[in-house]
Amino acid sequence: MSDVIGGETTLADVPLREDLRGRSPYGAPQLDVPVLLNTNENPFPPPRELVEDVVAEVREQAGRLNRYPDRDAVALRTDLAAYLTGATGVAVSASNVWTANGSNEVLQQVLQAFGGPGRTALGFEPSYSMHPILASGTRTEWVPAPRRADFTLDGGEAAAVIAERDPDVVFVTSPNNPTGQSVGLADLRAVLRAARGLVVVDEAYVEFSERHSAVELIEEFPARLVVSRTMSKAFAFAGGRLGYLVASPAVVEALLLVRLPYHLSSVTQASARAALRHSEATLGGVKLLVDERARVVDRLRELGFSPVPSDANFVLFGRFPDAHRAWERYLDSGVLIRDVGIEGHLRVTIGSPRDNDAFLAASEHVSEEIVK
Amino acid sequence: MSDVIGGETTLADVPLREDLRGRSPYGAPQLDVPVLLNTNENPFPPPRELVEDVVAEVREQAGRLNRYPDRDAVALRTDLAAYLTGATGVAVSASNVWTANGSNEVLQQVLQAFGGPGRTALGFEPSYSMHPILASGTRTEWVPAPRRADFTLDGGEAAAVIAERDPDVVFVTSPNNPTGQSVGLADLRAVLRAARGLVVVDEAYVEFSERHSAVELIEEFPARLVVSRTMSKAFAFAGGRLGYLVASPAVVEALLLVRLPYHLSSVTQASARAALRHSEATLGGVKLLVDERARVVDRLRELGFSPVPSDANFVLFGRFPDAHRAWERYLDSGVLIRDVGIEGHLRVTIGSPRDNDAFLAASEHVSEEIVK
Repeated sequence: MSDVIGGETTLADVPLREDLRGRSPYGAPQLDVPVLLNTNENPFPPPRELVEDVVAEVREQAGRLNRYPDRDAVALRTDLAAYLTGATGVAVSASNVWTANGSNEVLQQVLQAFGGPGRTALGFEPSYSMHPILASGTRTEWVPAPRRADFTLDGGEAAAVIAERDPDVVFVTSPNNPTGQSVGLADLRAVLRAARGLVVVDEAYVEFSERHSAVELIEEFPARLVVSRTMSKAFAFAGGRLGYLVASPAVVEALLLVRLPYHLSSVTQASARAALRHSEATLGGVKLLVDERARVVDRLRELGFSPVPSDANFVLFGRFPDAHRAWERYLDSGVLIRDVGIEGHLRVTIGSPRDNDAFLAASEHVSEEIVK
Repeated sequence: MSDVIGGETTLADVPLREDLRGRSPYGAPQLDVPVLLNTNENPFPPPRELVEDVVAEVREQAGRLNRYPDRDAVALRTDLAAYLTGATGVAVSASNVWTANGSNEVLQQVLQAFGGPGRTALGFEPSYSMHPILASGTRTEWVPAPRRADFTLDGGEAAAVIAERDPDVVFVTSPNNPTGQSVGLADLRAVLRAARGLVVVDEAYVEFSERHSAVELIEEFPARLVVSRTMSKAFAFAGGRLGYLVASPAVVEALLLVRLPYHLSSVTQASARAALRHSEATLGGVKLLVDERARVVDRLRELGFSPVPSDANFVLFGRFPDAHRAWERYLDSGVLIRDVGIEGHLRVTIGSPRDNDAFLAASEHVSEEIVK
């Protein structure tokens, strides 16, 4: 007899969809380990001025929490547009921007409007593992397509597979998670020319890269290009859950048809606006992480590992005959990294210099595990 | 030539799903009118102590916004369970509670797990207009069923239509929005006994009612009963976007399969916990609104209107030969109420005494418009 009401009922007893039976919830283990380098978080806490600005904005909003938030988040979208204009050199307007609780929700809305039952979404694997999960959650058929053996994307081959499979939505992650490389504008153009459906360039890690943003191509492909981004990584705002996208106003209008009304709280809107005002300080930390990335990659090479070149705040590296065993050895050393399911490889987030020191020290021992 | 990038592209140009073409986004007009009685908001701003507590919690969280939030929101679910235990007398555990950005997201997750393509959801109309919209967004076929002419629900008739149509999900809104009446436990039992699928009792307005909560029935129907609630109304937390549900742990486990990882920001979790600590103060305002509801209903009757009995913070009233024309007359008087599309009726939210005075003063003029 369970103490919890309904505690004896099991998942087998409830009228769940058949296609969900036997599945496990998505998510990296949230373990209590000294060095956390598994979810590509930014290691630097927000500066004090940012915290105080968030607090001041929230105090103002909290006095009217009894009222619904601005359903269309116009002030926040205006601020994001200004940031994007500065970052990309493209004159982005608020009507080009849409925002939701994390880029996962943004991408879910994209699939609700442009994918769904009877439609297909194609991605080049290995890539962000949420893309096929979001497809499944919106009942969009997932079509996996390959990358080169070195995990880069060949624009010509990508265009050929798009022409052949004719997907309704194409995902291109740049820089790619979990492998790290960017896709250049020439390759993106090839993809966009081949596509009949929507092309989503997922730029969650773009601030760590020197490459041009796909935002530059929206004017050329206004009916099919969407560029998604997040404040979780470079902006050190993972806890605030703010994802956004840039596209033509018509695409944004389409998303209004599927978004839940009042999806974004007034507290989230206000906090994100405060954080954006400090983008210069936050993005200063990005430069340090890029330097640390170079240091980590160099040292891994010295130790005999094979790191994959990365434009992001993480590095995929190998090669291990048994990657999971190597992952456990890191964990034994108090360093939590990610086994992303790519044979022979693990992914490490670039953390603070001290985190990276701990990771590199552990790597000296784990180097026993690599392919000789 | 548009100044906005991609500004000349229209909705007709983008590869939108065919079934979304021609639709309009959901949502009441957000107009700038002196007296806002259209979205069932609580008129009382949060007390100063609550605001300061929200601010203190957010300050603590803001210092680690670079980290992802607790994916399973355990602390918040524990606090909600304690509130529910006090409010219903049923010993609710954290494992019985699930929470998301507004009850819309909670209900969307329920439909993703228990509805979806090839499945059906049944509701008794008129009711909360988001239910069929959420069904459509998750590609669940919507099956409308009738209420009595006076908008009440007959348990026997409801059971008969459920037995006949055999839906995968049944929605029962209690108190019903936009008509106001609760459904008693005996009628709910009849519905639950007839149902093979999940029964969602939407109790968004339950704190304004004296009736027993359906939470009392979860132990009896653990495999099929879900009770959804919100902090938007009685808790005066509409801007904070916090919806939740109570069910057996197995149902909650099912929702983990479809929820987006990290869907609930650390700021939202912290703000909601702070607001819950002040539930006694906030719910004090509910008593005042219940008294005001009686005053508004009595005066409407005196003026010759026909208000529908309500257990919620709004009243549906009529009868008008032309409800939209009457709605416009209220707007001309600076009072924004809601035309919910029920012939001959309009819905007014119970506001502050001053708001209600303004509404009742306007009603004296608008009484010219009622059926003689």
